[in-house]
Amino acid sequence: MPHTPAYATQSADKPLGPHAIERRAPGAHDVAIEILFCGVCHSDLHTARNEWGGTQYPCVPGHEIVGTVTAVGKGVKKFKTGDTVGVGCMVDSCGHCASCTSGEENYCENGFTGTYDSALPGGGHTFGGYSTRIVVDERFVLRIPHKRNLAAVAPLLCAGITTYSPLRHWHVGPGKKVGIVGLGGLGHMGVKLAHAMGAHVVLFTTSPGKIADGKRLGADEVVISKDAADVARHARSLDFILDTVAAPHDLNAYLKLLRLDGTMCLVGAPPTSTAHPGLAAFSLITNRRGLAGSLIGGVRETQEMLDFCAAHDIVCDIETIAMRDINTAYERMLKSDVKYRFVIDMQTLKDEAHAG
Amino acid sequence: MPHTPAYATQSADKPLGPHAIERRAPGAHDVAIEILFCGVCHSDLHTARNEWGGTQYPCVPGHEIVGTVTAVGKGVKKFKTGDTVGVGCMVDSCGHCASCTSGEENYCENGFTGTYDSALPGGGHTFGGYSTRIVVDERFVLRIPHKRNLAAVAPLLCAGITTYSPLRHWHVGPGKKVGIVGLGGLGHMGVKLAHAMGAHVVLFTTSPGKIADGKRLGADEVVISKDAADVARHARSLDFILDTVAAPHDLNAYLKLLRLDGTMCLVGAPPTSTAHPGLAAFSLITNRRGLAGSLIGGVRETQEMLDFCAAHDIVCDIETIAMRDINTAYERMLKSDVKYRFVIDMQTLKDEAHAG
Repeated sequence: MPHTPAYATQSADKPLGPHAIERRAPGAHDVAIEILFCGVCHSDLHTARNEWGGTQYPCVPGHEIVGTVTAVGKGVKKFKTGDTVGVGCMVDSCGHCASCTSGEENYCENGFTGTYDSALPGGGHTFGGYSTRIVVDERFVLRIPHKRNLAAVAPLLCAGITTYSPLRHWHVGPGKKVGIVGLGGLGHMGVKLAHAMGAHVVLFTTSPGKIADGKRLGADEVVISKDAADVARHARSLDFILDTVAAPHDLNAYLKLLRLDGTMCLVGAPPTSTAHPGLAAFSLITNRRGLAGSLIGGVRETQEMLDFCAAHDIVCDIETIAMRDINTAYERMLKSDVKYRFVIDMQTLKDEAHAG
Repeated sequence: MPHTPAYATQSADKPLGPHAIERRAPGAHDVAIEILFCGVCHSDLHTARNEWGGTQYPCVPGHEIVGTVTAVGKGVKKFKTGDTVGVGCMVDSCGHCASCTSGEENYCENGFTGTYDSALPGGGHTFGGYSTRIVVDERFVLRIPHKRNLAAVAPLLCAGITTYSPLRHWHVGPGKKVGIVGLGGLGHMGVKLAHAMGAHVVLFTTSPGKIADGKRLGADEVVISKDAADVARHARSLDFILDTVAAPHDLNAYLKLLRLDGTMCLVGAPPTSTAHPGLAAFSLITNRRGLAGSLIGGVRETQEMLDFCAAHDIVCDIETIAMRDINTAYERMLKSDVKYRFVIDMQTLKDEAHAG
């Protein structure tokens, strides 16, 4: 599939712009997908600007993909032409390590192949969802059970699974009091999912303007994190905290809110040059607390998350944009000026390519 | 029991010196103990010098106590005169919170009463083991199953349980590869215990001079932690790391050595004014790693640890000192000039008091 329209950046300091890429012809186990929508993740920006290091250019970001199957290889069993499908952060993994064989390809010991900017065995690197088409091995293609609002489903493929997986791993559910730190793309999904799982949800946000929105999304309580007294009111009471804030911040203040054996899990990934400031050992030693991290989720769990979201009528709160507005969207994302995720309507790229 | 000889410090900047204290007359559930030996824990120094804040003076440290029962209250069931017993870091707790009722008094939600420098309900505060006698509720008195070498048993009451509890909590045993960071009072017990539990033990130390000693104590491998290449050789391979270093240090370098779902547990508690330097979120997000803390252990588990040590012929490696040499011992401890724990022979205090 030569000449697939896409948007790419050519170096860390350049904006994204039109760039034609090639997609491979579908192999026996491949699914060819016409992309309908692609969410805009903070990782896209980090990678485009080389903030995590190692970006290979041209870089075509995008790993929150929803589309329609246009062709399948002979060996494909799970999908057929016309199916609505999704692709998340991974398009391949070794398949034989302990993580892969247990269905946690996201922790592949040999490193999974990211949907974009990952090296390919035959040379070159992967191109993501800021394009009109993609070809993916069926093992990494998800069924989309939602019947409508597909644009708002797209960010589930990263923001959804990134928050769903740790909430499940640390057994969030009825009778549990759960903190969500930050109300952005990840945080707003954390609130929705923890609420749907039946937990008592306490949202911590820096913005008084987000109180009403936090409650609408499912928070039982909203705490303004700058109000130390209000924060301290929850001391030693939370079973689990999902910290979605990527920017360096004081972890100790939140750790103190955990009960015995409680865990705070980080899912925000700041640029590698930064780190969270000093960690006091007493924050952890008291109450045998844990601080952990979690990275997206495996294919099986991603499908489970999509099914859970469809059953609970959960999608993301989004703002749809045209492909050509991606650079403006990045700037607004940096100012947290989005409620709560940008999603690119890929028809705009098709129209642009057709006109061009 | 008026005029019990002890050693106390009167303020943060003063050395320890002779100071007579009073011990209560044994109540119905109390055990009166003649102290034979008391280990010297780094916590003693932190508290004497008010490095954790809130020290009440005069301060009589000491919470690694082994002695002989001299009297018991009417209601005491577990002990009789002549028994060899131990007292660790706690002498009381609320007894009714979820932690206490589950046998984890060390995490008492209302705060346990420390063996020294903890407020007493009727005013005043507790005095620790740098003294000739102590009176303790039988619920916080331990049986000492060891038949000999009681001086070397004393530090098990803190250094032993502080390392035993997390090793058990995180299921260290055969088939597990376990890292121990630091070879001091805590670290040398971590090596002995993890080895006795059947794990493959990798010791990380800054001192090339400690390689032979580390192996003698039970380490299968010793890594000089300043040798980044040698450290990196263990990347993604450890199931659990017990980090016994109290001084602020880079946690990221060790976190990277953990496998999927591995945990590093901190048991060293630096002065409250200090913190470990910046923590990179990626250190945890990769491999869903955990960083945790652990605080001594409950009474039941402390007894289990003592029984385990007796069964495996484990004691601490110690240097016995006279009470009057405690200030010199503190200075040597600060320079890590001890293999691996000082223990005060309390006969020296009796002799001194008798002569005085």
